[in-house]
Amino acid sequence: MTDHNDFVVTPWEVRGDIDYDKLIKDFGVDRITTKLIKRLEKHTGNLHTLLRRGLFFAHRDLGWILSEYEKGNKFYLYTGRGPSGHTHLGHLVPWIFTKWLQDKFGAKLLFQMTDDEKFLFNSDLDIELTNRLSYENALDVIALGFDPQKTEIFSDIDYIHKLYPHALKVAKKITFSTTKAVFGLKNESNIGQIFFSSVQAVPAFLESVRQGRNIPCLIPHAIDQDPYFRVARDVLPRLGYYKPASIQGRFLPGLAEGGKMSASIPESAIFTTDALKAANKKVMNAFTGGQATIAEQKKLGGNPDICPVYHYMTFLFEEDDAKLKEQYDLCRKGELLCGEHKQQLAEKVTAFLKLHQEEREKAKDKLEEFIIKD
Amino acid sequence: MTDHNDFVVTPWEVRGDIDYDKLIKDFGVDRITTKLIKRLEKHTGNLHTLLRRGLFFAHRDLGWILSEYEKGNKFYLYTGRGPSGHTHLGHLVPWIFTKWLQDKFGAKLLFQMTDDEKFLFNSDLDIELTNRLSYENALDVIALGFDPQKTEIFSDIDYIHKLYPHALKVAKKITFSTTKAVFGLKNESNIGQIFFSSVQAVPAFLESVRQGRNIPCLIPHAIDQDPYFRVARDVLPRLGYYKPASIQGRFLPGLAEGGKMSASIPESAIFTTDALKAANKKVMNAFTGGQATIAEQKKLGGNPDICPVYHYMTFLFEEDDAKLKEQYDLCRKGELLCGEHKQQLAEKVTAFLKLHQEEREKAKDKLEEFIIKD
Repeated sequence: MTDHNDFVVTPWEVRGDIDYDKLIKDFGVDRITTKLIKRLEKHTGNLHTLLRRGLFFAHRDLGWILSEYEKGNKFYLYTGRGPSGHTHLGHLVPWIFTKWLQDKFGAKLLFQMTDDEKFLFNSDLDIELTNRLSYENALDVIALGFDPQKTEIFSDIDYIHKLYPHALKVAKKITFSTTKAVFGLKNESNIGQIFFSSVQAVPAFLESVRQGRNIPCLIPHAIDQDPYFRVARDVLPRLGYYKPASIQGRFLPGLAEGGKMSASIPESAIFTTDALKAANKKVMNAFTGGQATIAEQKKLGGNPDICPVYHYMTFLFEEDDAKLKEQYDLCRKGELLCGEHKQQLAEKVTAFLKLHQEEREKAKDKLEEFIIKD
Repeated sequence: MTDHNDFVVTPWEVRGDIDYDKLIKDFGVDRITTKLIKRLEKHTGNLHTLLRRGLFFAHRDLGWILSEYEKGNKFYLYTGRGPSGHTHLGHLVPWIFTKWLQDKFGAKLLFQMTDDEKFLFNSDLDIELTNRLSYENALDVIALGFDPQKTEIFSDIDYIHKLYPHALKVAKKITFSTTKAVFGLKNESNIGQIFFSSVQAVPAFLESVRQGRNIPCLIPHAIDQDPYFRVARDVLPRLGYYKPASIQGRFLPGLAEGGKMSASIPESAIFTTDALKAANKKVMNAFTGGQATIAEQKKLGGNPDICPVYHYMTFLFEEDDAKLKEQYDLCRKGELLCGEHKQQLAEKVTAFLKLHQEEREKAKDKLEEFIIKD
């Protein structure tokens, strides 16, 4: 847990103005170096925008994963989602990156829906809802085009019989003191919260259990989840498995001032289930880095560094680096006005959503191909 | 947890010279009064020796269970076993009593094998073993003659998919502080141990979940398990279920001095899988309340109150109260010598074991009738 005056990043809470450099230090992860990126590129042929732009910026043992891969020891991917509500664009960022890794490395993916966790950590969510949201959210995963032959999605609650015996083995090696130190759990924490980290550890070695031999596991995830895998990395070798490797991304900022995205402010995020008109409106109402008046904007220029519109372009909606730079420069010079920039983004967002929603609809017929229960 | 100078009774450890009166006070349970016994007898027609002799001696809400029964609101039974090894005669005591309750009240029984608990609390047991012992121990349950139409036995590990969603609901209402206060768990306890009390609570309301209406639950058990159900009684009403009632028994003493029975002293207990000759030998080698020599015994008399031979007769092997009293009196007067008394017990024990082992063998073909996995 990181809790400074300015920002908080825990698996259950992310707020404030995140200092990612500080987070690297606090969490003890490694920055992805240019050298490592070049090594990765040798295998992938190109680099995903999220890597190129440093939005996936940190890792644990990524070099080892590549070494094993180079020796012919292929890795599998593991990521997940805490189904506490509808999916928004921020959730899609690590999934899109995970799909790219699957495509480039032909890797199998285990996708965990932690409906148990979301129930345990949210006083206002009931278990039937978090379980149902697992399947709602799975539609968004499937809509992104993962390979059904290589992707297994499961809800913890519905797949627990396969997870529990292994979770117990992990749990036997973790003390309350550890969960206190790593997650900031307290004497007042409920005993489900305390146990849960053992459930999140299981997919990091489940494929090794299934195949009866150790298989490297790479976990792409937003950096707030790192504490879970830090604990898993400590315990798994003591059970005879590899430490899982991870590659960690930044958070897509929200549309409100200060990049805030909050379930309590629905306008601050674009959900995959939003009507196109509503999504368009959210973009057009977004906070920007612009000046108070057009006249001032033309004179002083805007500030793309604090602008959600620019950030959305960077994360998801402008793949062309030259065009992105042009937007940045024009904004700075006061030549790209916020209204126009928002209009450009709104068009891209609604086009993306239209396609995503079509695929999401089709995904309803594909659930059985992806979901594992037995 | 009770930890005095003299004795310790927790769900995982029972040692020393147990003061049951003190335990009643410490645990906050009620003594079974003569009035309550008479009320029970109205329904059962007779009284089981274990009740008549005060060996099931304490309860929680037994009067309420009878009131509900009298109103036509039948209860179901729930008991269980922590499968850490083979079954010994001490384990059979509450099961025999539970079967009597099933017969007399036509009650359904849920029988929980806590293979998860035994793995989590014993550093030298692996999970495959505790799981396998669930089915070994189930043979002893079945051998006692429970009604297959009314009895469901399950291993926590193999039935977890049905237990977990409800265990999560319980877990959300229990803090680490509570498990610390009730079970004496520590910061160094593993997180599986901390979670486990929520799993043991589930069968106390599972039948209500299944039937969609509240059904009273009566839990016959050895008194060391009371802390689990104390927690369950606190939590279940907050989930909309009845508090489970319980009826609590004493421990069958071991065959060694001081009534000690220990897995590390195999001679101190008779296991259901013991060869008849071996069982015979264990009885003949038992500690007794006799004097050092026959001459002294004849002169001073023996002490049946501290004698495992007499205790075994009392708990399991002499149903006739007059004959039991005769043994007591003759021992006191020095007219029943230990060798003779042991010989009488050995005959009864081996006769019981012979029959039990035949039934246990037959039980192998009946497992499917009793075990639930789905």
